[in-house]
Amino acid sequence: MSVQEITLDDLNVEKFIETQVKEIKEAVGDDIAINALSGGVDSAVVTMLAYKAIGDNLKTYFIENGLMREGEPEQIVGWFKNLGVTVEIVDAKDKFFAALKGVTDPEEKREQGITQVFYKDVFADLVKQSGAKVLLQGTNFTDCEETAAGVKRQHNVFEQIGIDPQETFGYKVLEPIVQLRKPAVRAVARAVGLPGEISERPPFPGPALCARVIGEVTPDKIATVRKATVILDDELADVGAFQYMAILHDDMVTGLRDGGRDYGHQIEVRCWESTDAVTATPTELPFGTLRKLADRITTEVPGIVSVTYNVAAKPPNCMEAV
Amino acid sequence: MSVQEITLDDLNVEKFIETQVKEIKEAVGDDIAINALSGGVDSAVVTMLAYKAIGDNLKTYFIENGLMREGEPEQIVGWFKNLGVTVEIVDAKDKFFAALKGVTDPEEKREQGITQVFYKDVFADLVKQSGAKVLLQGTNFTDCEETAAGVKRQHNVFEQIGIDPQETFGYKVLEPIVQLRKPAVRAVARAVGLPGEISERPPFPGPALCARVIGEVTPDKIATVRKATVILDDELADVGAFQYMAILHDDMVTGLRDGGRDYGHQIEVRCWESTDAVTATPTELPFGTLRKLADRITTEVPGIVSVTYNVAAKPPNCMEAV
Repeated sequence: MSVQEITLDDLNVEKFIETQVKEIKEAVGDDIAINALSGGVDSAVVTMLAYKAIGDNLKTYFIENGLMREGEPEQIVGWFKNLGVTVEIVDAKDKFFAALKGVTDPEEKREQGITQVFYKDVFADLVKQSGAKVLLQGTNFTDCEETAAGVKRQHNVFEQIGIDPQETFGYKVLEPIVQLRKPAVRAVARAVGLPGEISERPPFPGPALCARVIGEVTPDKIATVRKATVILDDELADVGAFQYMAILHDDMVTGLRDGGRDYGHQIEVRCWESTDAVTATPTELPFGTLRKLADRITTEVPGIVSVTYNVAAKPPNCMEAV
Repeated sequence: MSVQEITLDDLNVEKFIETQVKEIKEAVGDDIAINALSGGVDSAVVTMLAYKAIGDNLKTYFIENGLMREGEPEQIVGWFKNLGVTVEIVDAKDKFFAALKGVTDPEEKREQGITQVFYKDVFADLVKQSGAKVLLQGTNFTDCEETAAGVKRQHNVFEQIGIDPQETFGYKVLEPIVQLRKPAVRAVARAVGLPGEISERPPFPGPALCARVIGEVTPDKIATVRKATVILDDELADVGAFQYMAILHDDMVTGLRDGGRDYGHQIEVRCWESTDAVTATPTELPFGTLRKLADRITTEVPGIVSVTYNVAAKPPNCMEAV
């Protein structure tokens, strides 16, 4: 791997920002650059670096894929409006759900349901319409490393998956934070003025709630796992974990409602302690918190009769199930 | 329901034993009676009551269905040998696995894979060969109640499921402990001289490990959940829980081995606090115990990359997943 890491210890935040702003300015020139915000800290930092570099020559889009958390598109747009950055919401829900229909394999979900639709069906059109020559991406050092190791195919690492963006899509790709792991990205996030809600936000990957559904992804299943995710945000936001998530299982389990049998699904809760996502251990949540999560989820989320908490470390576990 | 409960408070153990022994003696007369031991406390108590009543006119069988825990048939036979009771092991593994092939619905598993094979293919033959006129069963009060409520179809309650044993199979059924819930059954177990390993044994239902596999049951999956069950027995036997279990999920999740991606299965651990199985809450196991279980299971059980602990109460959860 030719990319060199800048560790948190070695990072000079102000100098890093200055260098990246300069490089973006030079690469874009008087052209238009385009980027997509996912709502996570990585793409948020890239947006701020690019906005500092080229101002209104940056077109930032939030692709509403139908897989986002409750109220997420509006919230993101609001945060950036406060920072002077205009973010345009693009409604592409139907395209994503059509591509995800019948797909159960996790790799296929990411590749056909997310990557291909995102780039070929949605983003390529935006690039053409906007007249942009440069695409900015929030690829970080851990993404590169895991993709190189074959652990997973990141949805945002063109070169690693053998696609030449210049040839395939006709534009140039910049990855300003590719040398940083998450703690360093957060340090830059604070320095570029992003609010704490973004700079300290637990990771939430590009495929969003799609990666939180085992088996075929449908609008109903996304609605179910979205409701469970709201409950986790209520109960776990203050725990200070690296990341937490609700996962909807495909397996059915026996439940009991109103004195009779009720087959239903299970929500699995994961909450991770980690510094860089390479290794992780489950957070020792108070048992009362786990019981409260279970009571709320089985009461408030239709179709859910059972709740588990993941207690295995990465490796051999992974942080995401899908 | 016409059966009247005898509560633990109302139970006079010595008088109960005397009454049941007398009733069995009268019902069997000089005939042969037959019963099947599952390894649980219910069928063990019935065996001892019947042995006290009719001695060697009782034929007790242990049906090896291939779904039992590690070393279980030999262990059971050994315990009863020490009590003077001869138990014959009947190898019926192939019949059970043939009937379970391709069956994924939990009700069908119990009905076609267990109940039908047990009674029609295996037990009916034993009754004919033995010349028995009376069948003794370990149905308890909670079984009756749950079957009547439609929560689940117990594998051992003929009448509740509309089968007339006299007409269908040609023999008479006695259910000596049908008025007792589990704590009362355990009190009787101690009084009839059963060792603590049996009298205090957490419940393990008739369908055995079959009820611990979500989806199709195969010899490989049974071997997997059997290995996980041995680890739970090591780590949880001294916790004093009402019941605990390892469940093999059908869903696949992403894991990580030797730096590369490894798709695998998940084992769900359940451990219950309950007095009568009608309601139950998850045991507050120390986090270190949960982590140790996860480390051992992901290390020692091939194909398992992830481990969860169930944290939802019954209802709306059930104690068993299948």
